[in-house]
Amino acid sequence: MENFSVTILGSSSASPTNDRNTSAQIINFYHRYYLIDCGEGTQMQLRKNRVRISKINHILISHLHGDHFFGLIGLLSSQNLFGRKNDLHIYADPRIREVIELQMKLSETNLQFPIIYHPLNFNEKETLFEDKKLRISSFPLDHRIPTCGFLFQEKKSLPNIKKSFVKEYKPSIEQIKDIRSGGGFITKDGHRYQHSDITTPAYEPRSFAYCSDTKYFEGLSKEFTDVELLYTECTFMKDFQKVADDKYHLTTADCARIAEESKAKKLIVGHFSARYKEIFDLKDELTSLVPTAEVVRDNQVFHIREHS
Amino acid sequence: MENFSVTILGSSSASPTNDRNTSAQIINFYHRYYLIDCGEGTQMQLRKNRVRISKINHILISHLHGDHFFGLIGLLSSQNLFGRKNDLHIYADPRIREVIELQMKLSETNLQFPIIYHPLNFNEKETLFEDKKLRISSFPLDHRIPTCGFLFQEKKSLPNIKKSFVKEYKPSIEQIKDIRSGGGFITKDGHRYQHSDITTPAYEPRSFAYCSDTKYFEGLSKEFTDVELLYTECTFMKDFQKVADDKYHLTTADCARIAEESKAKKLIVGHFSARYKEIFDLKDELTSLVPTAEVVRDNQVFHIREHS
Repeated sequence: MENFSVTILGSSSASPTNDRNTSAQIINFYHRYYLIDCGEGTQMQLRKNRVRISKINHILISHLHGDHFFGLIGLLSSQNLFGRKNDLHIYADPRIREVIELQMKLSETNLQFPIIYHPLNFNEKETLFEDKKLRISSFPLDHRIPTCGFLFQEKKSLPNIKKSFVKEYKPSIEQIKDIRSGGGFITKDGHRYQHSDITTPAYEPRSFAYCSDTKYFEGLSKEFTDVELLYTECTFMKDFQKVADDKYHLTTADCARIAEESKAKKLIVGHFSARYKEIFDLKDELTSLVPTAEVVRDNQVFHIREHS
Repeated sequence: MENFSVTILGSSSASPTNDRNTSAQIINFYHRYYLIDCGEGTQMQLRKNRVRISKINHILISHLHGDHFFGLIGLLSSQNLFGRKNDLHIYADPRIREVIELQMKLSETNLQFPIIYHPLNFNEKETLFEDKKLRISSFPLDHRIPTCGFLFQEKKSLPNIKKSFVKEYKPSIEQIKDIRSGGGFITKDGHRYQHSDITTPAYEPRSFAYCSDTKYFEGLSKEFTDVELLYTECTFMKDFQKVADDKYHLTTADCARIAEESKAKKLIVGHFSARYKEIFDLKDELTSLVPTAEVVRDNQVFHIREHS
């Protein structure tokens, strides 16, 4: 059973193609769902991937180019139609509110649930959301309009106490807390257990970075060092480096450089220019630079290492 | 070769379902394309149905409920990306301009083609567009917000002169004009031909009416009497008549009544409530009232009688 996965809902840039929708990804973290970007048709893609739209409470929009948010208004309308009542959090350029409210006004729709708007910070890294297990941050990118990437970081957990120990010595809640925080244990007959004897180590926390539309710039990679899974846009191949720079987009070479600098364990790329009818050449070029890298396709699911 | 057809791009109401997109239909009239309504995903549906979006010069939006226009902004953006330069005519509630312009502004998109906005008249029937062969009109409906239906009427043509006559007597252009306008012909040796002897009658002009979201009201049917093909929304079955009335929608019984009153030759219905997972019962109820009626499915094409 997956407990941290990324499903690609759209991997085309600018316009949809025959087999690719525009940008959107749904993150499943212990069955809590976080939507990143929301190109046209996202609600249909969610349906196709059997994600109930009522379960999405957090939507992150990297920037206000249409291929990243034109599906939002339809998704909100459907949530409303299906009877949503609870808060929806939208993390985006604050001007998105105007677009949503204007369309709701014109169609005389009264949303039956509150939208909590969280303005993105386009100048520096910022925590957007935090709970016991997860932290989501945004980091600024360098695109033609204000744009952020997003970083999902699982929090470090405390070590677990070995079951056999619990069964034999039945420690109290106080003692359990003490052991998990690093303490040992002395039995009634005076035997002293070291912390490491009676615990299994905390798992290595996992992380995912979504590097939306941007050109390469120095310092970008330090925003998401050592992630387990890194997604970057990859609009062009190397021979279009000049075009990519002019349009504030990445090439395969840029993606490889970012993956290397950030020491990402796995690189996946999407947001391909419609000029690449087939993605084979781009894939070949990318994997010649980063052998384990993958070009994504719509409806592909990436499971991030499961905790045993 | 079809010369007048209607392709259903979306037949769901309110929200898309697994196999139905929200409202949109493309009219092919002698390879000129007219788009009626533009729910989310319309540009993908056009692509699927091999209609080049660059060929669409006229877009008619019946009203500003999202399921009828949320796909418009994506379609315009793609037309722009694909290099469109020529005028695009949009017939709609004039407030649609604000939605389009706001989204273009936020995404810092400069449309490279002019949009000509034609405000719909929600009070009385009006001609929207006219050329040699076709007249398109709008007529007011009774929905929760200002809404119009659309009527496509082929113009009556003049009779054609029989080929055998032309071959034998080689009439001048002046004579041809005279004959087609109703005149006869006198040969050099004084033989008099009657008009009907040397012509084939003008074809019966064809017509299509799109009756968008509305409740039934007296006088509705007279806006599109004797159409060859009538599309009406049909959101509910008869047992939901009260709900339909309250929500300003039609039931199967309403549709049958409209078809009968307007003397439509063929009735097709769509815009089904999501409550009908399968459409069998609604279809049975409808065809018990109008045996030749059809419930539409997405990507279905209706050819209107071809001229021989």
